Amino acid sequence: MRYKRIPDETIRRLPIYLRCLLFTSEQGRQSISSQKLADFVGVKHWQIRKDFSYFGDFGTRGVGYNIEKLSKQIKRILKLDVAQKAALVGVGNLGSAILTHPGFGIYGLDIAAAFDVNPKKVGRKIENITIENVSRLWTLKKRKIKHAIIAVPRQAAQETASALVKAGVKGILNFSPCHIAVPKNVKVITIDIAMDLACLPYYTLGS
Amino acid sequence: MRYKRIPDETIRRLPIYLRCLLFTSEQGRQSISSQKLADFVGVKHWQIRKDFSYFGDFGTRGVGYNIEKLSKQIKRILKLDVAQKAALVGVGNLGSAILTHPGFGIYGLDIAAAFDVNPKKVGRKIENITIENVSRLWTLKKRKIKHAIIAVPRQAAQETASALVKAGVKGILNFSPCHIAVPKNVKVITIDIAMDLACLPYYTLGS
Repeated sequence: MRYKRIPDETIRRLPIYLRCLLFTSEQGRQSISSQKLADFVGVKHWQIRKDFSYFGDFGTRGVGYNIEKLSKQIKRILKLDVAQKAALVGVGNLGSAILTHPGFGIYGLDIAAAFDVNPKKVGRKIENITIENVSRLWTLKKRKIKHAIIAVPRQAAQETASALVKAGVKGILNFSPCHIAVPKNVKVITIDIAMDLACLPYYTLGS
Repeated sequence: MRYKRIPDETIRRLPIYLRCLLFTSEQGRQSISSQKLADFVGVKHWQIRKDFSYFGDFGTRGVGYNIEKLSKQIKRILKLDVAQKAALVGVGNLGSAILTHPGFGIYGLDIAAAFDVNPKKVGRKIENITIENVSRLWTLKKRKIKHAIIAVPRQAAQETASALVKAGVKGILNFSPCHIAVPKNVKVITIDIAMDLACLPYYTLGS
């Protein structure tokens, strides 16, 4: 079965739904209402139904969504039903925070390699990952690591992205506050923490 | 003029548009086409027109959008036309990365205070900000700081949020991978870096 034309906004919400489902499942529950799911995620409940309509409906009126069935389906859509490896480039403050972040496991994500340009950092271990020299990025190809996180200074972001693409990486999560150019078959998601903060005053200061 | 009912998704894209406009303006340009803007942001060009339709149209056929006019308008909507202060709680790896992040300035955002629970960190200076003890969070009220960033371990997130709300904070950017409960008049945006990485395999592994 193919899932085409699911909007990006829906795809971005799926991991949030998944986190809510796993969290609710841990509490011993088997189903959840669209309203509870909506409250957790912070969207309207019709948005939930619309999002799920792209890949079939799992809700039963009065009972809600079956957590196990829905979790499996979301994992399958996101290709998280098999463990996914990712590499980290840049082990500064942000990179270290990413390496020690406890949240990747629940999605079956595994930061399997870390790289830095600083010779003092190369060889050091963080969370069982030995930091490697960036000159070894090419090894990602034979290690079959197709996802990478860029946490290097802005000036080095494009160069890093190009090296990753050359090493066969197909998906990049970019934390450098800049646009990076990649071939069309590579997906880049840029995260700018300043941008998220920039949304807050709209909500807090009234109109 | 009041801007009501602008969808959250549109609000989240406004800072990205703004960044693109400021970037293009620095290159000496006065206008930009909706296609260029769309390419930069990574959305379809009809999405741009739809987003801007919520607050008036600034485009001229064949000429594009006037950068100065549009930037001003977006800043006004996001309430970034006056400088906004924010406090940071938690100066670990992630908190330090936030304090030294170069991207806040362009939005008129200013991290004006930082707090940590660790007495070894209290009193230290990062980027001209002296780290204060979390027991002093209550001072935010008289300092009129209404926005805060939570970068503490998961277990301390709810307690931190409650203390911030008590100190008059109205908007929270939460980096702890957990749900935090706040009164209805407080806006929380939760950022989970694992969630963003969880979207990538959908795009990279084909269907």
